[in-house]
Formats: sequence, C-alpha cells, structure tokens
Amino acid sequence: MLIEGVHFHRRSVPARQIGWKALACNVSDVAAMGGRPLWAVISLGLPPRTSVPFVDALYAGLRRCARRFGVAIVGGDTVRAKQVVVDVAIIGTVEPGHVVLRSGAQPGDALFVTGRLGGSYRSGRHARFLPRLAEAQALVRRVRVHAMIDLSDGLASDLWQVSRASGMTLRVDMARIPVSNAARKCLRRRCPCRAWHGWQAQFHALMDGEDFELLFAVGAGAAMRVPRRVRSCPVTRIGRVVARGIRVELAFPGGRVTRLTPQGFRHF
Amino acid sequence: MLIEGVHFHRRSVPARQIGWKALACNVSDVAAMGGRPLWAVISLGLPPRTSVPFVDALYAGLRRCARRFGVAIVGGDTVRAKQVVVDVAIIGTVEPGHVVLRSGAQPGDALFVTGRLGGSYRSGRHARFLPRLAEAQALVRRVRVHAMIDLSDGLASDLWQVSRASGMTLRVDMARIPVSNAARKCLRRRCPCRAWHGWQAQFHALMDGEDFELLFAVGAGAAMRVPRRVRSCPVTRIGRVVARGIRVELAFPGGRVTRLTPQGFRHF
Repeated sequence: MLIEGVHFHRRSVPARQIGWKALACNVSDVAAMGGRPLWAVISLGLPPRTSVPFVDALYAGLRRCARRFGVAIVGGDTVRAKQVVVDVAIIGTVEPGHVVLRSGAQPGDALFVTGRLGGSYRSGRHARFLPRLAEAQALVRRVRVHAMIDLSDGLASDLWQVSRASGMTLRVDMARIPVSNAARKCLRRRCPCRAWHGWQAQFHALMDGEDFELLFAVGAGAAMRVPRRVRSCPVTRIGRVVARGIRVELAFPGGRVTRLTPQGFRHF
Repeated sequence: MLIEGVHFHRRSVPARQIGWKALACNVSDVAAMGGRPLWAVISLGLPPRTSVPFVDALYAGLRRCARRFGVAIVGGDTVRAKQVVVDVAIIGTVEPGHVVLRSGAQPGDALFVTGRLGGSYRSGRHARFLPRLAEAQALVRRVRVHAMIDLSDGLASDLWQVSRASGMTLRVDMARIPVSNAARKCLRRRCPCRAWHGWQAQFHALMDGEDFELLFAVGAGAAMRVPRRVRSCPVTRIGRVVARGIRVELAFPGGRVTRLTPQGFRHF
C-alpha cells in the first residue's frame, strides 16, 4: 500500500512512476518467494480534486509494469480519500518445491545480495526499479535457496527480518557490501557520520531503504554454484549464517565484530 | 477499500465493526458472483498515533468475519497513513457454470431483491451486516441466475449498474420495493420529499446505500422457482427486464412509468 506523503510526494514523483512502483513492489515480493506473478487487483483512494490526467498517468504506469512482468490486472476498487492511496494485491504461482521463505536460513549458509545498495530514494530509482523477477527465477532453478527476501526497508532491517524468521545469527562483512554509485554520490555531498569514517558508504547502503534487491541464503556447498552475475545483475557474497539465535552482526577487517541493533525504516 | 471520513468515522463506528465491514463487503461481492470466498489479504494504513487497542479491535472484527464465512487471512501490509485505511482483497472460487455477472440480464427476466432496503447507515447495520453468502449459494443451486449484484451504492445506482452492463431496460414496481423498518423510522422523524408524498419510504429504500442485499435477474420461467424466503431472508420480486437499451424505469400503480436518472452514492 503506497500512501501520499509517506511513500511518495505527488509533486516530486510523476504519477506514472507511482503506478509503476505500486505494482513493482508486489512483483518484487513474489520474486523473492521464488514465484511468478499472475494477477493483480488495484485499489485506488483519490482526493475529490484529483485531475484526470494524474489518474490516467498512474494507470499507465501500472499497466506498463503489468505488461513488462506478465501480470493481468483483473479488478479492484476506486474510492474517495484525503490523500492518494494505491494498494495492490497480487497472486503468483511457484513451482512445487521451489517456494522460498524468510525462515529457511541454516547455520553455515552463505548470504548474498543482488545489485548495489543505497541511494535509491535520492536517485529516484525507488520509483522506477526493475523487480528482480528473472534473476530470482534463474537463481532458484540453479541452486537450492534456503531463504530469500527483497530489500524494501533497508539491508539492516531486512537482515533482521531473516534473522528473526529463521532464528539465526547473520554476520555481514562490511567490506563486501556492494555500494551503489548513487549512495557514493550522496555521501560526497554530506558526511552524516564522522564516527564511522571510512565506512560511511557501507553504512549508507546498510540503512537506506527501497533498493528492492534480493538478499538470500544458500547452503555452504551450493554457494560455489551461485553465479557472480545473473543476467546483467551482479551477485555479491556479503556474509554467512554463523550460529543459531536471533542476532545480526557486522564484521570489520581485522576481526572486530559488532552487533547491529534492529533498525531500518520505521512506519510507526 | 474503506477510508476514515468517507466510509466510517472512528468515533461513531467501533473498530471491531470497521474490521468486520471491511471483510464483509468483499464476502458480499464474491457471494453476488455465485462464489465462495477462500483467502483474503489485508492492507492497513494507520496514523502514527493510532492506539494498539484500536488496531486489536479492528483485527478482532476482521478475524471474526473471516471465521464466520470460512475465509483464511493469508497476508497483507501495514503502513503509516494520515487517516485509517483498510483495504481487503479476496479470492473466491465458483463451481463451473455457476458464475454470475452483472451483464447477463435478458429481456423478460424477473428482478428480485433479498431482504428489506434502506436505513442501513442510520441504524448501524452497514457495519455489522451479514453478507448474503449462504442465500446466494442456495439461489444459484436452485435456479439459473442470469445477473446478480450486491447493493452497495443503493438500489437505484445498482439497477443502473446492471442496466449498463447488460444493455437492458429494467422496470421496478415502486409498490413492491421492500422497505426496512429502519428506513420507515428515519422517515417518521423527517420527511425530505413532499412532492412524492406516499412514496417516501420506497424512495428512501431506492436511494439509500450500503444495504448489501442481492439484486438478481432470472428468466421468466425460472421466476416461479425462486423461493419467497431463502433461509430466514425474504426474497421479493420487484420488477422485470422490459426491453433492450440502457434505462431504468419506475412503475407506479395505475400504469404511470417514469424514467430514473442515474444516481446513488457518488465518490467523486
């Protein structure tokens, strides 16, 4: 559910991109379970003075994303609201035995992420990203993925989601976190965190939300078979599952390990 | 999609009933297609200062409705919003050959409604109504229903929906519209329409929304097999499909027929 003023501002994000994003988030969720999306229903809440071109553009974005990822828009609802609300519900399908949950990480698993992280909101990528559907499909066909999640609230927050759901301790090597150019660019403008001098880019990539990349865990043996690239998307090994017990740790070169407190985007 | 300030006011409707209504509307939609609901996903938008007891009560209402009508709540989303938003998407199933659309009305069909109409909002019934699921199932098993719709925006508006979708002229006998006691009670308090003296109750029942009763069309031959009651719910023959062409007419005793202009609850 995307809400004006929380997930987007009407003046700063074109309606077409709001529509695209509303559906793409859902496609990303299905992809992260190893599935393929099939059908979607769209609920729109609109203030009475919303212009028709705005609604047309919103729907153009929705339809464009639907075509691109093979989704049929089969119904929905349109009501009056005080702010623009776009809610999408999606149905997907998954081949028997290929369904991937957040809860399947095992001790010894290797942790990977697709793409490069951070700066999504500032660069505008958050509203025109390509869900990693084909990449996820290629991965689940090639190796047995134990657990997977799409990065919506930030790597730090989504590591916690997997840790909690699986009951495992995840350890991430700070030096391995792939940082996007957009995140590096933001940092050149301002340096928010002098205490971690040298690691700002990685911290930014850890904390920034809306990357919609995949974080996944595979068995230590299968980790060798995970390709460095899927289609044109880089796949980076960032850490491993070190033990049982809910905890997320950051490992720095030299052996220092610190505990990451639960964080990420907070809705409330 | 139910929106605070449009579909309900937090102070006048208990949270439990908001939850019940959000799911019950969807069950009613599935029922009106001759189907049975199976799974639902719930998206909640909540202002940051929403109390936990409010959310608990909302969910208690959702769960209660789910249990009552055999729906499994299988997922959803929770986000920050400026007003309470509850959006439910539902999946149902229908036996082959039993699916009923709004578009299937035929010339000569008889028109029926379940229950008694009007006064739903004032009496509070709009937030605790029982969707006519068992009644719809019993009807589609007994007779071939050509077209069906649940009355959400008012009988007048929903007659227009069927007329438009089917391309047919529907004629309703004013004297046959079943008027609820709640509607009669509202009218005793004030008389909004002196010009139609004698027909206020029927007009109220025509125009008032959120009855969530069923309006359906069956062939003239099958009309004899429609029972007067399904379970404890009255079923009333209110008119017929008189010709092709999109139009809704009201017939008064003595033979006078007037055309009904398109109306009902307007979102925009």
